[in-house]
Amino acid sequence: MRIEIVTIGDEILTGKTTNTNVHFLSRELSLAGHTIVRHTTLPDDPHLLELGLKEALDRSSLVIATGGLGPTIDDHTRNVAAKLFHSPFRYDETIAADLERRFGKTLASLKDQATVPAKAKLLLNRVGTAPGFYFSSEGKGLILMPGVPVEMEVMFKEQALPLLILPETAHLAVLHFFSLIENQADPLLRELKAAHPELDLGIYPGHGVLTVTIKAPTQKLLQFAREKVSSAFSQYLFSSASGKIEEEVHRTMIARKKTLALAESCTGGMMAAHLTAIPGASEYFLGSVVAYSNGLKQTLLHVSERTLKEHGAVSKETVEAMLAGLFKVTAADFGIAVSGIAGPSGGTPAKPVGTVWAAMGERGKPLHVFPLQARGNRQTILLTATNVLLGTFLFSLRSFPLDIEPGH
Amino acid sequence: MRIEIVTIGDEILTGKTTNTNVHFLSRELSLAGHTIVRHTTLPDDPHLLELGLKEALDRSSLVIATGGLGPTIDDHTRNVAAKLFHSPFRYDETIAADLERRFGKTLASLKDQATVPAKAKLLLNRVGTAPGFYFSSEGKGLILMPGVPVEMEVMFKEQALPLLILPETAHLAVLHFFSLIENQADPLLRELKAAHPELDLGIYPGHGVLTVTIKAPTQKLLQFAREKVSSAFSQYLFSSASGKIEEEVHRTMIARKKTLALAESCTGGMMAAHLTAIPGASEYFLGSVVAYSNGLKQTLLHVSERTLKEHGAVSKETVEAMLAGLFKVTAADFGIAVSGIAGPSGGTPAKPVGTVWAAMGERGKPLHVFPLQARGNRQTILLTATNVLLGTFLFSLRSFPLDIEPGH
Repeated sequence: MRIEIVTIGDEILTGKTTNTNVHFLSRELSLAGHTIVRHTTLPDDPHLLELGLKEALDRSSLVIATGGLGPTIDDHTRNVAAKLFHSPFRYDETIAADLERRFGKTLASLKDQATVPAKAKLLLNRVGTAPGFYFSSEGKGLILMPGVPVEMEVMFKEQALPLLILPETAHLAVLHFFSLIENQADPLLRELKAAHPELDLGIYPGHGVLTVTIKAPTQKLLQFAREKVSSAFSQYLFSSASGKIEEEVHRTMIARKKTLALAESCTGGMMAAHLTAIPGASEYFLGSVVAYSNGLKQTLLHVSERTLKEHGAVSKETVEAMLAGLFKVTAADFGIAVSGIAGPSGGTPAKPVGTVWAAMGERGKPLHVFPLQARGNRQTILLTATNVLLGTFLFSLRSFPLDIEPGH
Repeated sequence: MRIEIVTIGDEILTGKTTNTNVHFLSRELSLAGHTIVRHTTLPDDPHLLELGLKEALDRSSLVIATGGLGPTIDDHTRNVAAKLFHSPFRYDETIAADLERRFGKTLASLKDQATVPAKAKLLLNRVGTAPGFYFSSEGKGLILMPGVPVEMEVMFKEQALPLLILPETAHLAVLHFFSLIENQADPLLRELKAAHPELDLGIYPGHGVLTVTIKAPTQKLLQFAREKVSSAFSQYLFSSASGKIEEEVHRTMIARKKTLALAESCTGGMMAAHLTAIPGASEYFLGSVVAYSNGLKQTLLHVSERTLKEHGAVSKETVEAMLAGLFKVTAADFGIAVSGIAGPSGGTPAKPVGTVWAAMGERGKPLHVFPLQARGNRQTILLTATNVLLGTFLFSLRSFPLDIEPGH
């Protein structure tokens, strides 16, 4: 079924509120196997609203709309929809009784809210006051729900979603890779597409992380294509519902019962912030010494003045010393140290903006020390460094899977 | 001018990514005085893309579109737009040279990216590889920008926005306040609007930061209204082009030639990451001890085991001890310490999720220690804590403007 989502409200068009409803509905509908072909946001203007809803119904068999269902002066959705489906209004005693029970007789909008389009099936609002509606005629459907997210989300899951007939299973795979760039993956995907034009392939680059989506008409072809892409870049593959590499770092560290600490210079707390954005990070993450100044590199991480002077803050020697110092001042099992030039100034011909040195490893084991050259502006350099370092860390964890028990 | 925003990409329609671009563009365009009449999201399908863009151009005089500009198999926007504006392609030597300089000769997409529609004005991409385009013909304009937010945002501000002619009546003021909530500002704005119905007032709340916009038909009325709003909440007012409080913290600290260090627990590096996102932060920012575990609070910040045991990690006593420790291990003139419960778990009846304790001040001076209760989910709690703490810090800097010289 071709589904369009229409969100209604000036507050979205002016950027006052983020459109969380469209994201929620798209995700829920996609996960249930439906295909969304368009999103539209329309203003609180009855004429433009009517035009926009009519266009959507002309194009698609089902339109799901949110917003503009309240009783105030700028709420027009109910009237416009009733007009489009040629529906008179009627007073619904059940809605009136329910509102009276939950909000009392004095609810100013009670009479308004209980006056509903006669041709629509009602979707009860268990949270707020405005009921939702399902219009259906001549192979076209229109579901209207309130714009308040907590009201809409409950109504959608409990009442709207069950109305939709499930499509034949969508054959979809989503694969995430770290340290892989678009240009590396593209030739293989073009080759696959040439051999199997019925495949629907997508590449989503994201600063050190690449996501590939595969849609196929059959489960067999999906498995074939998924296997092709996965095995070509298996060493970079990671699994995460959100596409965030820190999710797999989080799971891996907790599964291994190991702890991690960071020594950050250029990333300035960003790596720690990414790790701690996930609930439960304290199970493995001890903390980060954000030694932005050379002074703190010396006092908190015991990097010697000589190392900093002779090799500079962005060097193999400094990140090695930062990591050694980190192991000294924390009890962490694993550590990552990073120092780089985020720009826009501070670059030299030998060390241009984007030069990053990293050291990482397990306490008492050989360390992995390497440079990388990140591109873009300050923000993308820091984001790329964060993702590439976490990816490399995950890679190194996999290469040395588990500690050998003492005595073996 | 009637502006429509079109965002392109299956990843938005399937709910895989949140559509931050449309929110960013709506907000920026509204703040610049423009009116957005519609948002549309279209799939990575050349036919549906062409239909959707054509409809938008038929309806409105300017369409701003993002996404689908890369060189890969699912990027169709450039071709579709060239077709709509009957434009052939040409090879642009300047783009090619710029890409070669920034990404090297081996960039696989170099030839693709440098092949551009001949009729379009080019918008350079300073961050990534895909240039943007501005098509204009017969009173209709189409601006195309890449979908990667960090690339698009820079391109929009530096190159696209200056192309737009400001609406004539744009007497516009944008005021940012920290620690002010919508309910505090609302009565005054309603009063102003009642007295001067020709004013167009907007409130944009943003997790510890509130932005108020004032549009007026005359410069005189704008100044009157701006003065009314500014003076009512002058102690919370801050100035920043981006609306980010860390910008004024950055400027103030550098102007005073003072240094700052942080001791972060719940914010997990987010405060440091916000401060270091601004180029030149090393001029005043020494670093942050992200002591996420109690162990690091003890070893790195010298918080006693007894304090942690008796009062808990989220307490007045612990943040005081963290700040005292921070002053011990760094040479910072100013310090901020923070500890809280970001959730979703870890809350208790006495200290529910969102409870945050903070200590801040200048070395050797009386400290400011206070709790706050942030609301929302983990991410909004951390963001609110970061903004409120930086706002309070700025407030305290203003209250004690300058050190008195020794001997006076």
